[in-house]
Amino acid sequence: MRVFNFSAGPAVLPEQVLRRAADEMLDWHGSGMSVMEMSHRGKEFISIAQKTEADLRTLMAIPDNYRVLFLQGGAMAENALIPMNLLGDKTGADYVNTGEWSKKSIKEAKKYCKVNVAASAEDRDFTYVPPQSVWKLDPNAAYVHICTNETIGGVEYHWVPDTGAVPLVADMSSHILSRVVDVSKYGVIYGGAQKNIGPAGVTLVIVREDLLGRALAITPSAFDWKLQAENDSMLNTPPTYGIYIAGLVFEWLLEQGGLASMEQKNIAKANLLYDYLDQTAFYSNPVAKADRSRMNIPFRLADTSLDDAFLQGAQERGMVQLKGHRSVGGMRASIYNAMPIEGVQRLVEYMKEFERSHG
Amino acid sequence: MRVFNFSAGPAVLPEQVLRRAADEMLDWHGSGMSVMEMSHRGKEFISIAQKTEADLRTLMAIPDNYRVLFLQGGAMAENALIPMNLLGDKTGADYVNTGEWSKKSIKEAKKYCKVNVAASAEDRDFTYVPPQSVWKLDPNAAYVHICTNETIGGVEYHWVPDTGAVPLVADMSSHILSRVVDVSKYGVIYGGAQKNIGPAGVTLVIVREDLLGRALAITPSAFDWKLQAENDSMLNTPPTYGIYIAGLVFEWLLEQGGLASMEQKNIAKANLLYDYLDQTAFYSNPVAKADRSRMNIPFRLADTSLDDAFLQGAQERGMVQLKGHRSVGGMRASIYNAMPIEGVQRLVEYMKEFERSHG
Repeated sequence: MRVFNFSAGPAVLPEQVLRRAADEMLDWHGSGMSVMEMSHRGKEFISIAQKTEADLRTLMAIPDNYRVLFLQGGAMAENALIPMNLLGDKTGADYVNTGEWSKKSIKEAKKYCKVNVAASAEDRDFTYVPPQSVWKLDPNAAYVHICTNETIGGVEYHWVPDTGAVPLVADMSSHILSRVVDVSKYGVIYGGAQKNIGPAGVTLVIVREDLLGRALAITPSAFDWKLQAENDSMLNTPPTYGIYIAGLVFEWLLEQGGLASMEQKNIAKANLLYDYLDQTAFYSNPVAKADRSRMNIPFRLADTSLDDAFLQGAQERGMVQLKGHRSVGGMRASIYNAMPIEGVQRLVEYMKEFERSHG
Repeated sequence: MRVFNFSAGPAVLPEQVLRRAADEMLDWHGSGMSVMEMSHRGKEFISIAQKTEADLRTLMAIPDNYRVLFLQGGAMAENALIPMNLLGDKTGADYVNTGEWSKKSIKEAKKYCKVNVAASAEDRDFTYVPPQSVWKLDPNAAYVHICTNETIGGVEYHWVPDTGAVPLVADMSSHILSRVVDVSKYGVIYGGAQKNIGPAGVTLVIVREDLLGRALAITPSAFDWKLQAENDSMLNTPPTYGIYIAGLVFEWLLEQGGLASMEQKNIAKANLLYDYLDQTAFYSNPVAKADRSRMNIPFRLADTSLDDAFLQGAQERGMVQLKGHRSVGGMRASIYNAMPIEGVQRLVEYMKEFERSHG
């Protein structure tokens, strides 16, 4: 029996995608091979890779002057690879600090350049997004880096900063494909796949073409965006099976009506949980209402001595991975695209039941 | 119907592994989740990762003073990451050039250090391994790099160089797990998974503990071997599903009797093809007999105008991916662990038949 899996990532995938992957495991479309066994340069896999990219372009309405790369290493590798690929002859970059993932990006970038923290939410324990009116941007920065959804803190940008001529670089790992995004407002959008895209081990980089060619000499070729763009992400062997699963997820998203439709479903799911959190003192969420994440909803029990009993009861009711990140404690419900509303309904019902029996 | 897949990589996997992956796709061991959906920090995936490493240690008899890392980026990324991780306060490294993959490693290393090409097989078009008697090693080198099996040229080391106190670093991508290896003779063994280990997107690094801690300041944290060793390869999200498939492959290898047994099977398979190649003038293999690869067997038709007909006939008989690498042309049969001897028998029968009808 399948559980409701609230993991922050790797995370729940659409059951339809998993069924199809299982069905095609030994013989993809009469090829006599698993996708895992296909040469990345064979016509079968090239057709998969091309359809995967085309479907993503359709879903996100990616303009023609952007390249789509499927790489490896996750967002953590990109924390180093972004300055390596974008600094060119600049020596510094702007970063906005909204939580744990911003902090990781900043720490790593300092190995390669002067980091200007243009704004930070540390003053209120990373529970909000600093409005652009307080940002202190450097006009000579190579780029402005933001994390548009903080997976651990549960803080999300619901607006797009205006950085003028300086390219805006966004780590969208944990909310990409959950909402409509105007790609043209960004220089680079990137993220690990293991939330809304597919299996861990695929890294998506969407980069405006004019930003290619600025890589430092120390950039490993396998992670040089320009080289990978010139080789359709096949300078080296790409993570083929992960790309195939991502393609199945993209097909499923198109069947669901695309990102506008997913966004409405995600708003409804998040409201279900937040509305209840706002009605009770038994649980709480610390994030400013305007900046709450639709994907990752951290919450605490007022009486933390009940945490283990809460998690145990959830497990018994088929709901797993609700424990909060080890750095912050409490609970966290990650409700990505593939989490059906039934999962959130069951969670809220259980939270109410637990409150009645323990309140 | 499954084909015989002679792809150089990604490559054929054991059918038993694929069947199990399909069976477990929606619900791994009653967890209610696919392995793809599991948090890498959950008890289910940690048990998978630990068993995978333990089985590999058993298979290769890896000594306790070696760490096993499951990373990302493939051997091409490691071409940069090896100098980054091993140079320490040294400024140069030795490389032996036996073909296309050696050349790629050398080219990339030059971005980070002074490369001394200690020996090269270029004088005979990369058809042999230069004996150690002609190597000109630098005693101050940070390491000596070799590619122990050249996937494109079909040249394999059947002996282990003695580099004294200088660590020997071996790219074993395309023959790892195909034979017994004395790990203690090497400082680092590395390779992409997509030949004998599992799906593309997993990179194996086996490193002697005393070599950790030499990384240059510019090394991305996600690829810093010491940081990854300290975090059991989970500093960032590892390629979880690929690691799971690798684990299934390792279980299959243990069931087959381990590497000594696989080596005997691989010798038998390779002999079947080489014996025939040595009996005919219709086909030829250019590699010195003592240095022939058991995994990748390139061969040419004397009359190259028949290449397309040969490939077409093979395809009709359920044998695919026999076309040689685009850089060298001709044919190539990659006969990794998961290629059953029946596949090689069918290939040799077809080659004889083709010779009779076109000779």
